[in-house]
Amino acid sequence: VWLVLEEKKIPYQYKEVNPYHKEPSFLALNPRGLVPTLEVSTADGHKPLYESTVLLEYLEDAYPNHGPSLYPNNPYDKAKVKIWADFVTSRIIPAFHRFLQYQPNTGSGTPEGLEKLRQEFLGKLVEFTREMDPVGPYFTGKEPVLVDFVLAPWAVRLWVFDEFKGGLGKPEKSEDQKVWERWGKWLEAVKGRDSIKRTTSDAQHYLPIYKR
Amino acid sequence: VWLVLEEKKIPYQYKEVNPYHKEPSFLALNPRGLVPTLEVSTADGHKPLYESTVLLEYLEDAYPNHGPSLYPNNPYDKAKVKIWADFVTSRIIPAFHRFLQYQPNTGSGTPEGLEKLRQEFLGKLVEFTREMDPVGPYFTGKEPVLVDFVLAPWAVRLWVFDEFKGGLGKPEKSEDQKVWERWGKWLEAVKGRDSIKRTTSDAQHYLPIYKR
Repeated sequence: VWLVLEEKKIPYQYKEVNPYHKEPSFLALNPRGLVPTLEVSTADGHKPLYESTVLLEYLEDAYPNHGPSLYPNNPYDKAKVKIWADFVTSRIIPAFHRFLQYQPNTGSGTPEGLEKLRQEFLGKLVEFTREMDPVGPYFTGKEPVLVDFVLAPWAVRLWVFDEFKGGLGKPEKSEDQKVWERWGKWLEAVKGRDSIKRTTSDAQHYLPIYKR
Repeated sequence: VWLVLEEKKIPYQYKEVNPYHKEPSFLALNPRGLVPTLEVSTADGHKPLYESTVLLEYLEDAYPNHGPSLYPNNPYDKAKVKIWADFVTSRIIPAFHRFLQYQPNTGSGTPEGLEKLRQEFLGKLVEFTREMDPVGPYFTGKEPVLVDFVLAPWAVRLWVFDEFKGGLGKPEKSEDQKVWERWGKWLEAVKGRDSIKRTTSDAQHYLPIYKR
């Protein structure tokens, strides 16, 4: 959501929320207590909205002429973008967290268990990348759309696997070589967006949080 | 999705899928093997789409002048409809199934366990109903929108709790009396839609399936 506010150059005020000490003023806006929560200006005063994908679509509807459109014009292509955005949130992101949080050397953890989660995560990335436009660099072509922004925050943090899991473990050579090249092209394009630079801190600030 | 095809009077062909014997022609359309799957006509030939909410939005985009609009015009109200449609799919429907599937007299099941799930389900319905337009009869007012059609298929099957769980168990008298009256008004309006009648079989056909 923060990326899309930047991409569309929509004026906004950023307020941090301490997830361990949620202030009553925040909980009054969103009883579910989740970020991001947007407080928007309407004809009836300021009102809250939440759920990331809902917020992205709201920004698209409420600011139709700001920056890149989050969807292709064609209804079929638009639906396909939504299907793969759902794949990111329901499959890729959970697989990212299962892989990152697994402890191969404590409790019931084993190196084989870690390897299984690594392959599951890599498999999801391959499945996703196969759906991309062959040329790109973005998912549907020359310009980024919703699904690119939904995956971007996790994609630009893949360095956490270098730090905690001995590397992401992409195969050096495999039958998926072409797929990984396409993935690399996508990732490079995403990392080059100004919106990413303006919403990302240096790794040193994330490290203690991920370590915990 | 079937309801909305009927509501919008979009020409379609209905094909049943046996979930225990999925035909290769179906799996070729949707590798995830889930219903509903829509095969749509595009400039590049017939192509598949899936995920219920994606399909509903596709029908809205692709047939903009067919029948009732699934969303209010105002971007804020539209986002609110999506938030509560998400509440139906992520909270109400899972609570419906947990309550229905719980066996109080077998294994680790207890009558107290059943009562807890009953109250959770009723609590979700109350939370949902409090968000409705006070007059209605539908969620946002005189005409049904997306969220009404997302909940409708479960709402018109609440009789399964009479059959298998000794009744839904709505309180006879409670501080939520007004809320339950509003719920009743909504349910009556939904049950009266022609689209519901045209997509619902007699209870006797569902009974052996639910019983299993």
